[in-house]
Amino acid sequence: MRVLIITADGFEDTELICPMYRLREAGFQVDIAAPEWGEVTGKHGYHVSANLSLDDVEPASYRLLLLPGGKAPALLRETPKVLDIARAFAADSRPIAAICHGPLILLSAGLIQGKKATGYKTTARKLEAGGVMYEDSEVVVDGNIITSREPLDIPAFMSEIMKAIAPAQD
Amino acid sequence: MRVLIITADGFEDTELICPMYRLREAGFQVDIAAPEWGEVTGKHGYHVSANLSLDDVEPASYRLLLLPGGKAPALLRETPKVLDIARAFAADSRPIAAICHGPLILLSAGLIQGKKATGYKTTARKLEAGGVMYEDSEVVVDGNIITSREPLDIPAFMSEIMKAIAPAQD
Repeated sequence: MRVLIITADGFEDTELICPMYRLREAGFQVDIAAPEWGEVTGKHGYHVSANLSLDDVEPASYRLLLLPGGKAPALLRETPKVLDIARAFAADSRPIAAICHGPLILLSAGLIQGKKATGYKTTARKLEAGGVMYEDSEVVVDGNIITSREPLDIPAFMSEIMKAIAPAQD
Repeated sequence: MRVLIITADGFEDTELICPMYRLREAGFQVDIAAPEWGEVTGKHGYHVSANLSLDDVEPASYRLLLLPGGKAPALLRETPKVLDIARAFAADSRPIAAICHGPLILLSAGLIQGKKATGYKTTARKLEAGGVMYEDSEVVVDGNIITSREPLDIPAFMSEIMKAIAPAQD
């Protein structure tokens, strides 16, 4: 069972690290992709090893795409390969989870227009202007897309993520 | 269902924040106690609100005591009230979890002498000199005491914590 996190320097540290640990606790292999393979550094100085470059990503291998926030999404949403990967997850109806500034990547990929979503408070106008039905809630689920606002929402965010990626029950 | 984290300024941010979010996700109310009520600041600059001072803590109210690491344990292990609280959990056979430098608090409280435990690598000699059977493992469980070494061990640490505090099965 594998899940994918896409990030870059300037990520919000806890929005990457806490979900990464939570997913590992549940037995998932967590791959981390960045524009370049190697170490990425968060806003608060944590270093995380990106074991993949974006070019190495095979979306069909993963049960989930997770997009942490911070400053990384500003770069990532301008990166065509990131948008292609997100669209590949959406095309297969695989879960995509984004928090804080992460939902802006989904906006750039054209994946949340006309859908309910949330994001960091300063992104609300941009999301709404792009056609998103913005909700000021700790977590919003619309189809396969799960969004949250900020680090304090991580418990609700992870709760919905774990439901979305739970193995099918017989 | 309530759990208690005891900390102070200089905590290892992810060792407090990731378990706090994980426990909230599972539906626990997480109380945070510090020498003084109010904001505490981690090594990496995260601020967390301590809703209790040490003097306000009633150990019998909690299902778990969690002791994050970082620089906070150096102060806390010299604080008699902290040692009294830890001993109260142990006397009732309530789970105690400590990571990184946190196990040194349990050493000062006399709770892990003769037991298996782990902790941050630089604490190994001190723990062994104090009579602990140190193991270099991601998580060590001996009776009601759960210990881990460092942030990367958080998935294994939380997995054992969740087992220890799961509601009794009928």
